[in-house]
Parts: sequence; structure tokens; C-alpha cells
Amino acid sequence: MLSEFDLIKQYFVRPQPGRATLGIGDDCALLTPSAGAQLAISTDMLVENRHFFAGADARCLGHKALAVNLSDLAAMGATPVAFTLALAIPKADRDWLKGFSSGLFELADLYGCELIGGDTTRGPLNICITVFGELAPGHGLRRSGALPGDDIWVSGTLGDARLALAGLRDEFPIDQESLALASLRMHLPDPRIALGRALAARSLAHAALDISDGLVGDLGHILEASGVGATVNVDALPAGPALAAQETAIRRQFCAQGGDDYELCFTANPSLREAILAAGSASNTPLTRVGTIESGAGLRLVDGAGAAVDLDAAGFDHFTLP
Amino acid sequence: MLSEFDLIKQYFVRPQPGRATLGIGDDCALLTPSAGAQLAISTDMLVENRHFFAGADARCLGHKALAVNLSDLAAMGATPVAFTLALAIPKADRDWLKGFSSGLFELADLYGCELIGGDTTRGPLNICITVFGELAPGHGLRRSGALPGDDIWVSGTLGDARLALAGLRDEFPIDQESLALASLRMHLPDPRIALGRALAARSLAHAALDISDGLVGDLGHILEASGVGATVNVDALPAGPALAAQETAIRRQFCAQGGDDYELCFTANPSLREAILAAGSASNTPLTRVGTIESGAGLRLVDGAGAAVDLDAAGFDHFTLP
Repeated sequence: MLSEFDLIKQYFVRPQPGRATLGIGDDCALLTPSAGAQLAISTDMLVENRHFFAGADARCLGHKALAVNLSDLAAMGATPVAFTLALAIPKADRDWLKGFSSGLFELADLYGCELIGGDTTRGPLNICITVFGELAPGHGLRRSGALPGDDIWVSGTLGDARLALAGLRDEFPIDQESLALASLRMHLPDPRIALGRALAARSLAHAALDISDGLVGDLGHILEASGVGATVNVDALPAGPALAAQETAIRRQFCAQGGDDYELCFTANPSLREAILAAGSASNTPLTRVGTIESGAGLRLVDGAGAAVDLDAAGFDHFTLP
Repeated sequence: MLSEFDLIKQYFVRPQPGRATLGIGDDCALLTPSAGAQLAISTDMLVENRHFFAGADARCLGHKALAVNLSDLAAMGATPVAFTLALAIPKADRDWLKGFSSGLFELADLYGCELIGGDTTRGPLNICITVFGELAPGHGLRRSGALPGDDIWVSGTLGDARLALAGLRDEFPIDQESLALASLRMHLPDPRIALGRALAARSLAHAALDISDGLVGDLGHILEASGVGATVNVDALPAGPALAAQETAIRRQFCAQGGDDYELCFTANPSLREAILAAGSASNTPLTRVGTIESGAGLRLVDGAGAAVDLDAAGFDHFTLP
């Protein structure tokens, strides 16, 4: 017999008390915010066959469910503090729970982010995490501050997660080595917490977000929120190591429109290039300039020679209702 | 076409800016806690066919999904501040979304609890709310403080939600009028926020929780966390108006073991009876003494004459794994 209480105790209550005044096991968790800090709060829900394939590795799922939430904190420049987990599972499978909780806590411990509460229930597999971070008031990296003339920066590399998806869907032939490399990126995204904190603490960025649905769609949110436009050089987009070996059309499209990257995209005054590259170095995060914010509305994609490129651009979107 | 962004804008973004520094539409919500306040945080996930029937009224669901979370804040004595909503829906049904968001915001507005962020995705219907409240440090009503000699109190009435379930399941004949009355209780629970705040602010209770899985099971959590036992008079349990008309065996069982009540159960020193009844009056909440905390472990159920009663007691539990 594995009751709900035993399940929580066995797989989700940690031996070490953390920062929470009161954690798992009461009606609420109690958390005392640092004096003067602002709370950054984000929620993401992952659904089987929508955000991951049925039968996905439980350890990877535990990692990814938290990583996508931490990525939202990174995009805000917040320091992770704690999270809650609500979990619907079809049955209480001990191997799955062990794998899932291992992947979850490995990443949580890396960022000192404490599980303070949650809910478990039987139901179609659904993982909902709400994450809490802290930052100095006024230092949050919003989407709305981009200014004409700003550089557009992207962290790390893009498109490998999309390449892995193409492999899993058999969209076109991909060699095993490339697929294995790309799959790591899809299954184990690495939230850019250190970079986000550095950008926020030193007020280096005018606007920022994390790239979850594809650069084109996500950058569009910055443009809309800021009332500006942009030109992006699709050949400057930093392709992931597996994607870089693919033909140009695929490379461009997956870099520009592939989802699940969890890199940061941010805009900044060109006078700050050196400081930004230093922040990238200090946080061990490669940074690439990929375009420019402009006053004219709309996003213009160009190639390395400045000629217009049409990718039939549209970000990944969960709903379309006829 | 109803995109995810349009869906959120149309049904979940409110015209009035609230307390959040930054709400829906960025990577994170930003919330500035009141100076010196402690945060109470709780998450509940509601799954179709587990917590509600398929085809349940959307407006009631919106109410209930938030109510069960607010009830956790009430049990802690916290004042509601804000919440996030993650929603998986099989399709973007405008009528459903309109009903759900109406029920949700009617209750949210009643308690000044602001929707500050969330996530929407396609998937089997799943509603996950995380709620944030505030309280003075040290004043949270925990489960672990019950002391031998304490009175055991219950707010409002018990068992009508369980009676409604019996009617929906056709467990035994129930007249239409009783069923309609009981169903209100099942579909539109009323979180005991005012009572919880009064108990916490004036340090009237040693231990408290909300009754979601049935009094016997939930009181068991207080007993275990506090290392005490109790005797409860099942004939003193305040039956709901529909249940009160049922025969004794059903009344006792549903009062003691019926889930979905969302009343508060708390323990307090007998010297505080007058102050507690005054707090009940001030918060417009009927209160009933139903038993006594004792040093001997275990929960003893007795009838009005003091004779042992066996209800084959076990709280509602979501998992049992062979």
C-alpha cells in the first residue's frame, strides 16, 4: 500500500530542513521573504503528449519540469528560492516516482531552490510547478523596455531541441550521433539563472525573456510589449552543435522558430557590449548579437548579406480554435 | 481563431490593475510582500472524474478550484493576496471559459485575491491553483500544537457535500429538495477566511486545519503532528441541513468521514471558549465543540451517551497501491 501521504514522505520530503519556516505537511507552506525583496512568481504546467512524449524518462521529466520554471526566473533576473509541485499521475509507480524526484531534486539542489509544498492526485499525467524567486525591486527584467537602437542578444545556442523533435517525429533522416546530442538539449535544458541575475543586478538589459516557443515568436512579445520593431540576422543565430551540421534552410528555421530552447533573449544599449560580454563570461554563458531593435513595427528577418528571409514565421502556440 | 494569448487576454486579464507590481503577460509576476509579513503558500490540483464529474458546471468549477485553495489559507489564518492559475483544457470552449472565469473571479474579488499569472495548455481537464496569503510571523495556525485537554472545535456544518455525492452516485434514495441543498455545499464551498484570520490574529487556537478529506482523517493529521489522541462525540458533529434529516448511521458516517466540507477544525484551551464563540460571531461562523484532545494516542469516537462508535474509519485518500 502506498498512500498519498506515504508517497509524499518517501519521494518528496527531504531530510534537511531548508529555508522555509514550514514546509510540506501542513495546510500551507510558510516562507519569510528576504527584507525588501520583490517576489518573482511563475507557473508552468507540463502535459503528456503535449510537452513530452508518453513514456518519457522520468528523471529527465523531473529535471525539465523544474528547468522550464527556473528559466522564467532567469528571464526576470531573479534568484530561485522555492517551488511547489502539483502532480497528477495515473498510478503510483515507484520506479517512476524515484526517477522523477531524483531529476527534480538534482536540479533544485543546484540552485538552492526548495520544494515547500504541493499536491498529488491520481489523473492523466500532469506536472504543475510554481516557482518563487527574489530580486531587488525595480531590477526585474521585463519585456516592455526595449528601445530603438538596442542590440538583440541571445544566450547559448538555439534549435537543437527542435532538431531532436524532428528526429523523434521522423521528419527527415538525422544521424544517431546528432540525434543523441540534440536530445540532451531537449530533455535536460539548463536554465540561465546566473546570466539573468547578472543582467538584472547590473541593469544591463532593457528587455528580456526566455525562448521557450521559438525566437521569432518570443521576440515578438518583446516587440509588442515595447512598441518597437526589429531586424534579426538569421545567419547570426547561434545554432546548436547538432543543428549546425544541417542544411541552411533547416538550420535557419529551427534556430528562428524551434521551441524548447530555454535560452535568454535580451536587448541592451550598444554602449554596454563589453560589460555584457563580461557578464556572459562570468556566468559561463556564450552570448551572441543577432540583430537590432528599430522604431518601425514588425520583425524583419534577413540573411548574412542583408536580404529578406521568409520562414513563414509563427511561434509555437498551444491553441488554435476555428 | 483563439490563440493562447487571446484566450488569456479575453478571459483572464482583468481591467483593473491590482496589487501586483507586474502581473499576467511577462515571464514572471512580481509581487512585493507587505513589510515583515510571512507568506503562506498552498497548491491544489483538481482533476476531472477525480475531484469533479465530467461535464461539471464551469462556473461552479471556477469557484471551487479557488475555494479549496483559499480554504488552506483559512486553515493557516492567512489573508489572501494573490494566486496563479494553470489550466489544461481539451479545447478552447468559449462558453466554458466564460463560466469558469466568472466563477473564479467572483470568489477572488470577494477576498481581494488577485490573479497574477499562470499557464494554459491543451490537455485532459486539469485545474491547478497556487495561492498566496500573508500573516504575521509566528501566528500561523499549524497542525502540530494541539495539547491534551484542548477542546476540539468545528466550524459550520459537515457532511452535506458527501450526501450530494451519495445522490449523484445513487447510493440510496434522497429527495430532490435535500439533494439540491446538499449539492450547493458540494459545488460552492465557502472558505472560512474570516474565522481563520480571527483565530490566528488573536492566537486562540493551538492547532488547526481545513476538513477536505473528512473530519476523522483530517483530525488524525493534527493528532499525529501533535503527538496526542482525542475523543470525538459523533452525535455532537454539526450535520448540514440536508444531512440532518437522514437516519443516524448515515448522518454519523457522513459527518465524520465525508469529504469536501472545507470547514475548519481546530483545538483550543477550554479557558478560551467565550473568546472563540465571540470570534465565531464576529466572523458570522457557527462553531461547535465536538470533543477533547487527550494524551493517549488514537482517535476514539463515541455517541452522545459516551459509548464507543465504530464507523470503520478511514479518511479519503487518493492512492492505494497493492
